[in-house]
Amino acid sequence: MTYQAPIRDIMFNIEHLPAAPEAASAGSGIELADIEAALEGLGRFCSDVIAPLSRTGDEAGARLDGAEAVLPDPYAQAYAQFAEMGWQSLPHPEEFGGMGLPRAAAAAATEILNASDLSFGLCPLLTDGAVEALLLTGSDAQKQKYLEPMISGRWSGTMNLTEPQAGSDLGRVRCKAEPAADGTYAVSGTKIFITYGEHGLTENIIHLVLARTPDAPAGPKGLSLFIVPKFLVGEDGTPGRRNAVTCVSLEHKLGVRASPTAVLEYDGATGFLVGEENRGLEYMFVMMRAARFAVGVQGVAVSERACQHALEYAQERVQSRPVDGSSKDAAPIIRHPDVQRMLLRMRALTEGGRALAIATAGWLDLAKQGGIDALDMAEFLVPLVKAFCTERSLEVTSLGVQVHGGMGFIEETGVAQFYRDARILPIYEGTTAIQANDLLGRKVLRDGGATARRFAGLVQETEQALLQGSEPAQAVAKRLGDARQAFEDSLAWLLDNAAADPNAAYGGSVPFLMLTGNLAVAWQLGRSVLAASARLEQGEDTAFMTQKIATAVFYAQHILVECGAERLRITEGSASLSDAALHL
Amino acid sequence: MTYQAPIRDIMFNIEHLPAAPEAASAGSGIELADIEAALEGLGRFCSDVIAPLSRTGDEAGARLDGAEAVLPDPYAQAYAQFAEMGWQSLPHPEEFGGMGLPRAAAAAATEILNASDLSFGLCPLLTDGAVEALLLTGSDAQKQKYLEPMISGRWSGTMNLTEPQAGSDLGRVRCKAEPAADGTYAVSGTKIFITYGEHGLTENIIHLVLARTPDAPAGPKGLSLFIVPKFLVGEDGTPGRRNAVTCVSLEHKLGVRASPTAVLEYDGATGFLVGEENRGLEYMFVMMRAARFAVGVQGVAVSERACQHALEYAQERVQSRPVDGSSKDAAPIIRHPDVQRMLLRMRALTEGGRALAIATAGWLDLAKQGGIDALDMAEFLVPLVKAFCTERSLEVTSLGVQVHGGMGFIEETGVAQFYRDARILPIYEGTTAIQANDLLGRKVLRDGGATARRFAGLVQETEQALLQGSEPAQAVAKRLGDARQAFEDSLAWLLDNAAADPNAAYGGSVPFLMLTGNLAVAWQLGRSVLAASARLEQGEDTAFMTQKIATAVFYAQHILVECGAERLRITEGSASLSDAALHL
Repeated sequence: MTYQAPIRDIMFNIEHLPAAPEAASAGSGIELADIEAALEGLGRFCSDVIAPLSRTGDEAGARLDGAEAVLPDPYAQAYAQFAEMGWQSLPHPEEFGGMGLPRAAAAAATEILNASDLSFGLCPLLTDGAVEALLLTGSDAQKQKYLEPMISGRWSGTMNLTEPQAGSDLGRVRCKAEPAADGTYAVSGTKIFITYGEHGLTENIIHLVLARTPDAPAGPKGLSLFIVPKFLVGEDGTPGRRNAVTCVSLEHKLGVRASPTAVLEYDGATGFLVGEENRGLEYMFVMMRAARFAVGVQGVAVSERACQHALEYAQERVQSRPVDGSSKDAAPIIRHPDVQRMLLRMRALTEGGRALAIATAGWLDLAKQGGIDALDMAEFLVPLVKAFCTERSLEVTSLGVQVHGGMGFIEETGVAQFYRDARILPIYEGTTAIQANDLLGRKVLRDGGATARRFAGLVQETEQALLQGSEPAQAVAKRLGDARQAFEDSLAWLLDNAAADPNAAYGGSVPFLMLTGNLAVAWQLGRSVLAASARLEQGEDTAFMTQKIATAVFYAQHILVECGAERLRITEGSASLSDAALHL
Repeated sequence: MTYQAPIRDIMFNIEHLPAAPEAASAGSGIELADIEAALEGLGRFCSDVIAPLSRTGDEAGARLDGAEAVLPDPYAQAYAQFAEMGWQSLPHPEEFGGMGLPRAAAAAATEILNASDLSFGLCPLLTDGAVEALLLTGSDAQKQKYLEPMISGRWSGTMNLTEPQAGSDLGRVRCKAEPAADGTYAVSGTKIFITYGEHGLTENIIHLVLARTPDAPAGPKGLSLFIVPKFLVGEDGTPGRRNAVTCVSLEHKLGVRASPTAVLEYDGATGFLVGEENRGLEYMFVMMRAARFAVGVQGVAVSERACQHALEYAQERVQSRPVDGSSKDAAPIIRHPDVQRMLLRMRALTEGGRALAIATAGWLDLAKQGGIDALDMAEFLVPLVKAFCTERSLEVTSLGVQVHGGMGFIEETGVAQFYRDARILPIYEGTTAIQANDLLGRKVLRDGGATARRFAGLVQETEQALLQGSEPAQAVAKRLGDARQAFEDSLAWLLDNAAADPNAAYGGSVPFLMLTGNLAVAWQLGRSVLAASARLEQGEDTAFMTQKIATAVFYAQHILVECGAERLRITEGSASLSDAALHL
């Protein structure tokens, strides 16, 4: 199972797509060449060490031995190398031992790692989220104690939100935290679906747990956030006594089978309050924003992996004569128009998703420097990255199977695994519907559509620049204009109707998210066309730049055209939805 | 894993959708009540005996013990009951012990059986195909020898086409058949992906094998069809000596894991020529038409199963307050608009697929009575049933997982299995691209678009009838008209361009198939609205008839609207496809 990190495309995106690329690295002293060197190093490590694990890991799966989760054999050694080489530290502050890469580059690192194996990638991904939460909400003492070992990869982190009765609805969390005399809390309850909730890859696991103090208000505003280490950390900073948290089972899953998904029982485990009581959900949202963005990148990652395998197979597999009569012999299937169509859909969706993710990371970088407008734009784009890129990864991995024909259905071929692995992505860290509610409720309705209109305005600026360009640039502009109009019509309808008929509006929330995601991707591909055209004029890297432009036109004419149907669903489909729902 | 056969909807379709329902049963003396009784009996058997096997069968999988394929334990007993109760015989002629049900009813039986377990259903499905081929092309002696035991379910049948180098491209088949002095042939070679190629459920397996005689021309016109029984059949009609065909391995598959997918080695096995030499592919096409139609019905079947599970879960799972503020407590998720949207997409696609399948079966029934026009229409519709219903089953089973949230990803829940099982359907019996080539090349271009235009004319008749009807009927007519226009525009473009630029035309073949399938489904749902409206006027079964109408309007406004994007891909997307393909 080979994998090559797509460094050329990644660097093109990092260089050209962040709204203010110079802002991202300002002060950090990190140059593009440093980023490229780091990503190339990570890419080699992932090709050589991680990618070969993905099949064996899937076959063996994680299993429970007593209360210990046992991962497939080679994972421990691979993880040790990963930590030793410092790959966990890429995105984190230098103050705690990190490399301080800008988020746009960190997103690329997340993609590369997860493309090589989603199951492996989940452990660092959750650690990144926990680090992010502690950085923003932990006390200085907590930061001193936990961050360096986590950023070094010696310890990992988890998010403990879900309980059997509380999935999307965190207000139903029942887990309890009783204050003790020494200022700690005794945490008790059951948490489920805890990714890497138990494993032996690291010396310690830092669980971040949502629970209720005794006098907390009911519902989501009575949740507090606690650090509950697997091993309590002594004054010297080393893991000591085992805490009262036990893994009671691991799930038997459709995919990401090598990653342990734990049911954890907390039985008076010692926990340390993070920040203030009853503000846990608010803090968790910080961690969730990072994790949601990262899961969207996982969608791009598994898509890239599926692309590489499908392309390789299509070049090798010989079957049937070309339909244009250009050969009397059977040809590699890559010469058949429908195989080309499938491969191009896969590539356009993958490169498009990457462009959106890196551009969004660019807004997050800007926001970090205090731009409130940039934060609004980033908040608007994150649910698109999460939901659009993961929903589309289902299509890309499915096409990957289809390109392989019957061989795709055989597990040994390996591409069925991508199809299985990807299926969790539109579910965990908030389902697509949850992202759509977030987009519509918090990011669109709350400010009366101001950010959404700003987004449309930015798209329109790109259209206008494209209209001054070459024929392909104009072709992209044409479809971009149609799709933006579909977005604006849908937005107007939602703003007009949400208050009086919330069911109608929220019945259109996923179509609206998919429309907006599609438009946002095409916008970034349009910006890619502008950048590639400029470099073409300098005569740089002609083949690559021409391909970027051709892929963008394909995207505009084959994928962006789906926005029209979404608009009809939103603006003319709400009555038929609610009528038909009466008969469910 | 419960399952209830949707008898009410099935009977509505059988009664109202075949183009000439009276023609189907003419002469057979079979009344609707007989059909309903037979399907109800099958439904009970499938609910009680087969559906409970699907999870255990999936977990255990088929495995090879020496050269014998061992199926999960309960399959043998279940199959024995299936045969004893005569369910294999439903669609076959009374002359050979069948019940002679019309195809429209037989399609429903195939759906019910496969909804209860795709892995189980594949054995009878392949036997049906082999019976069909022998009925049409076997000699009288062959029919006498093989048909009764197959129709009774005592023996099963297989199709042996694929070889490692010959998948979609059957012209590359290398398997050899040497004539012997006694008129038999010695068949040698390797066949792969042979569904139920080895198993112990039946006393004998009748392999239908494509092979080449020594002096056969190269390519597809040099293939002959042979009967190669697992056990040679004596004069007394009982299985005797073991033939030289050996199962050398079973595939480890993504889904339908309880069904054995065999690699078969033929080593001078005794074969009996069917019909004339070198006409094998032509005969196989007869069997393939039946099998392709049946696989399309499998798509409907697994969709129905996914619908039932998702609906049940959505009624039971309580999570989050309704967005319209109608309750202060968390509600069953079926009250959330996006869950309703997902369930309605699932239902509309499933009921729509069923309507198309049963209507197509009606055309096949008409064709059987000699109508050449009916045969053309049936031939036009079969690739739509195969490809559209199976592609859509991927969406429906994926939505089924999504409705379950995190639970959907856990194998014990059972719905992940439907997602895995369904994935083979757009691949086997000819991939979606092969169906699209068949539609465009053989069913559209060959007669200069005559059948396609007749199809559009029939759709338009339904539109006109709907325009005379109620408001919902008119709403369906509006979208039907838009979609028909998209179809006619695409058809015109393909007819204009296929000769000069076959790559451009065939690059649009799958979009054209998906457009046409979508329109064909909506056409049948439009006819359902007419039938349901008439019965509503009589005051019959109001709740059911109102639901049929509401589902059709939902389909028209949420799914049929996708035709516009397909038209743009076909008529304005070919240059961007071929340009981008230069960079693959």
